[in-house]
Amino acid sequence: MKKYQQEIDDWVQGYEEPYWPALSIFARIVEEVGEVGRLLNHMYGSKPKKVSEAEQELGQEIADVMFSLICLANKHNIDLDIEMDKVIEKSRNRDKDRFDKKQK
Amino acid sequence: MKKYQQEIDDWVQGYEEPYWPALSIFARIVEEVGEVGRLLNHMYGSKPKKVSEAEQELGQEIADVMFSLICLANKHNIDLDIEMDKVIEKSRNRDKDRFDKKQK
Amino acid sequence: MKKYQQEIDDWVQGYEEPYWPALSIFARIVEEVGEVGRLLNHMYGSKPKKVSEAEQELGQEIADVMFSLICLANKHNIDLDIEMDKVIEKSRNRDKDRFDKKQK
Amino acid sequence: MKKYQQEIDDWVQGYEEPYWPALSIFARIVEEVGEVGRLLNHMYGSKPKKVSEAEQELGQEIADVMFSLICLANKHNIDLDIEMDKVIEKSRNRDKDRFDKKQK
Repeated sequence: MKKYQQEIDDWVQGYEEPYWPALSIFARIVEEVGEVGRLLNHMYGSKPKKVSEAEQELGQEIADVMFSLICLANKHNIDLDIEMDKVIEKSRNRDKDRFDKKQK
Repeated sequence: MKKYQQEIDDWVQGYEEPYWPALSIFARIVEEVGEVGRLLNHMYGSKPKKVSEAEQELGQEIADVMFSLICLANKHNIDLDIEMDKVIEKSRNRDKDRFDKKQK
Repeated sequence: MKKYQQEIDDWVQGYEEPYWPALSIFARIVEEVGEVGRLLNHMYGSKPKKVSEAEQELGQEIADVMFSLICLANKHNIDLDIEMDKVIEKSRNRDKDRFDKKQK
Repeated sequence: MKKYQQEIDDWVQGYEEPYWPALSIFARIVEEVGEVGRLLNHMYGSKPKKVSEAEQELGQEIADVMFSLICLANKHNIDLDIEMDKVIEKSRNRDKDRFDKKQK
């Protein structure tokens, strides 16, 4: 994650106003999440696109959301690697006994 | 990104139903994006929390969204490193002449 | 719709700052849409709540979203009855030949 | 609200599958909420459109969200007038002493 946070920051720091106001970045995130929703309705709704084509697009839309999330994190000096490790640890503990494990 | 995609996949593959249906993962993503919105309203609205405290929480909420996005990507065999490189490249080209660059 | 727009406006006009900034109202809308998503995952996911109970809650969450949408509309002097009529008309025309009609 | 709920229901009941699955309607709602976000960033971001034009569009986008919310409500037999009355009542009570009232 550090790689992407750094790359994006290096690039935007060349601009007068490196990051938008937080609530504008947020509106952008929601716009892009909406695009993911549109695509999923294509894929799982009544008129599916070709699967391989839709998966290509889905990858780009997910990455668009991630890009904006990284901007929001950078703006607030958040180290996403630390945060990701915490979230994964949290999920492991929370779900330990919550779902059915495969039988060995 | 590969590290997180792999870690999450290793872990969920131990379960009977590794990933939820795509539209359920999507609803989860939106729930967590909503949490980010709630927090930003605390931070930038009329009753701000202490900034350091809110930034801690914001980091976790952003990482929660990322976690669910990675689940959605894994479910569809999407390589997020490839997609992130494309998005960053795309942004660089699109915004090249769009905003004011800092004067040297 | 006019009734609700009027009721909400009458009430908030009693305050110093009747409506929040638009992007804050938007973040609130998304927070509440996220609540709808959480509830739908309860209803249609693996651990359903009792249906009648969930429908009660769902009604409130949907109305919460509507309330915030009405605030956003009021802030921008939008007459939602005019807009609703247009949207319904538009949907009728667009979907006329798009889905299978019931056989008489 | 009853008027719109009834109009939409009368119309979709003519189709084989009157309402989409709930999670598909939800993805549609989010797509349309994303459109509202896009427009607000135009209106309040660095490159504003003409205000009157943007307000026109904003009205349609808000009504699009409402349309999909009404579909979700109809699908679950929710009476939105009852729910709206509850939400307005709840807001009145909650915010009674929360914000500064105008001085008489």
